[in-house]
Amino acid sequence: MNTRNGKDQALFQALHAPADSPWARWQVGPGRRQVRLKDFDPGDKPFSKGSKAEDQARVLALAREIDGLQNLFYADGRHKLLVILQGTDTSGKDGTIRGVFGQTSPLGVHTVGWKAPTEPERAHDYLWRIHQQVPAAGHITVFNRSHYEDVLVPVVNGWITPEQTKQRYQHINDFERLLAETGTVVLKFMLHIGFDEQRERLQERVDDVTKHWKFSLGDLEVRKQWTDYQKAYEDLLEATSTAWAPWTVVPANSKTHRNLMIATIVRDTLQALDLRFPPEDPALKGLRVE
Amino acid sequence: MNTRNGKDQALFQALHAPADSPWARWQVGPGRRQVRLKDFDPGDKPFSKGSKAEDQARVLALAREIDGLQNLFYADGRHKLLVILQGTDTSGKDGTIRGVFGQTSPLGVHTVGWKAPTEPERAHDYLWRIHQQVPAAGHITVFNRSHYEDVLVPVVNGWITPEQTKQRYQHINDFERLLAETGTVVLKFMLHIGFDEQRERLQERVDDVTKHWKFSLGDLEVRKQWTDYQKAYEDLLEATSTAWAPWTVVPANSKTHRNLMIATIVRDTLQALDLRFPPEDPALKGLRVE
Repeated sequence: MNTRNGKDQALFQALHAPADSPWARWQVGPGRRQVRLKDFDPGDKPFSKGSKAEDQARVLALAREIDGLQNLFYADGRHKLLVILQGTDTSGKDGTIRGVFGQTSPLGVHTVGWKAPTEPERAHDYLWRIHQQVPAAGHITVFNRSHYEDVLVPVVNGWITPEQTKQRYQHINDFERLLAETGTVVLKFMLHIGFDEQRERLQERVDDVTKHWKFSLGDLEVRKQWTDYQKAYEDLLEATSTAWAPWTVVPANSKTHRNLMIATIVRDTLQALDLRFPPEDPALKGLRVE
Repeated sequence: MNTRNGKDQALFQALHAPADSPWARWQVGPGRRQVRLKDFDPGDKPFSKGSKAEDQARVLALAREIDGLQNLFYADGRHKLLVILQGTDTSGKDGTIRGVFGQTSPLGVHTVGWKAPTEPERAHDYLWRIHQQVPAAGHITVFNRSHYEDVLVPVVNGWITPEQTKQRYQHINDFERLLAETGTVVLKFMLHIGFDEQRERLQERVDDVTKHWKFSLGDLEVRKQWTDYQKAYEDLLEATSTAWAPWTVVPANSKTHRNLMIATIVRDTLQALDLRFPPEDPALKGLRVE
C-alpha cells in the first residue's frame, strides 16, 4: 500500500513535502504510526514570516498566483486536482475556499459541499456519489468535507464495527489510488483547531444574529463528542496517509495562517507539475482568418 | 405566454430593466417582434461613464459587491439565480465569468460549460441534462452556453424543421417558467460582437501559441455561417424573451464594457430581491457554548 509506482513518481513527488520546507513537519507520511493530534499545536504558525497584515498580503498574492496557474493547468489538460478539506465545525473550511480560491475564476474551480447522504445516495455504496464529483482533466475540484465523513460520524456514533472501519480505510485508499494513477493529484488537508478556539467560534455564531443560519443546536451535541472525533481523526490520518494521497495537518486557530499554509502548498504543488501549454499546432502557422 | 403571475410579480420585477436605466434599451421585452441584431451596435458602451481605467475599477468594485451579495443570497436561501451566457466563439463568455464572478468565493458560484451532448445525453430529451444542473436554493449557477445551443446549431445546419424549432422554443419557455415559478431568477445575456471583431479575436488565437488550445479549425467553419447564426439568434431572442426570463443583448466588442454591463445588472438584480438574513432563532438567545 505504501510502495510507489515508478511511472507515477513525478506526480507523487509533487505531493510530498520537501524535507527543508515547513510543510514537512505537518505532513503525515505514509506508514506513519501513532499519529497524535496533541503533537500538532493548532496555534502554531509555521508558514508565517511577519505580521498578520504581511501574511494577509501574501495570501492574496498566492491566491492570484493560483489563478494564473489554474489557467495553465486547464490549458495543459494532463492532470486533475482534487483538494479535500476536512475539519470539525468552525474549523474554517468555507473560509479556506474563499481565501485560497477566491481570486480564481469560478470557471476553473468547482466546489462540492458534502452533506448527509440523501436516500438515493444511501441506496448505493458510500463512494458512489463521491466518484461522480471527482475532477475531469484540467479541472480543480475542492471538497468541503468528503468521503472521510464516512469514517468519522459512523465511527464516533458506533454505527459501524472496527472491522468495517478498517474495510473502509482500505476502500478509500484503493479508490484514491485509482484517482492518483489516472492523473489526479489528491491534496488532503485536516484543519486542526483547539477545543477553546471552537468554543469561541461557536459562541460568535450564537451571539451574532447574521450568523445564526450557520449554527444548529446539533453542533453542540457534536462538540460533546470532541474527544471521540479527535481519536477518529487520528486513526484515519494514520490509516489513509498513503504515498499517493498523504494528509497534511493544518494548524488553524489563525485563519490567516491557515490560508497562507494551504495556499502555499497548493501553489507549490501546481508549480511542481511542470505545466505547459500544449505544443504549437503546425496547421495554424501563417493562417489568416477571413 | 407573456402574462404575469400576480404572486411572482416581485421576482419578475427584479428581472425587468427600469425604464430610466441604460439597460432598458438592450433588454428584449416579452412580446417584442422583429428583433434585428443590426439595431444593436456591438461597439456601443451604454454603461460606460468614463475612461477604460475608470470602468475597469467599477467592474472590480461591482464584482466585490456581488461577492457580498452572494453570501447574503446564500444565507437568505429563498431564491436561486441562473445566469445564462450565450454568444458566438470569442464573444467573451469565459472572460465575463472571470470579470463578473472572479471575486466571488467558488463556494457561492457554480459554472457549467455546455459542450456537444454525449451519447447518454443524446439518448434523453435535450433539456434532461440541463435540468440536472439548475441551481439549488441559495445558489448561483452560470451557464457557459446552454440549452439555447439546441435552437442554434441544429437550426443553422438544417437538422430540425421550422416546426420543430417552434416546438423547442415552447419547451424552453415552459421549462424556464417552471424554474421562475419555483424561485429561480433567470438572467439571459447574449454577448453581441461584430463580424470584424471576431476576425481579430480568432486571428489573435491563431497567432499566439499559448492560445492555440482555445482554437479549432472548426471555428472557421462556424464563422462561415455567421449570417445564419445571427438570424437564428434573432429568432430565439424574439421567441424566448418572456416575462419570466427576458433576454438582454450585451454590446461586447469592448471587454471592459461587457463586464461592466453584466456586473451592474447582476448586482442590481440581487439588490432588487430584498435579501435578508433569516430571522433570529429565539432558542439561541443568551445561550453559552460550553
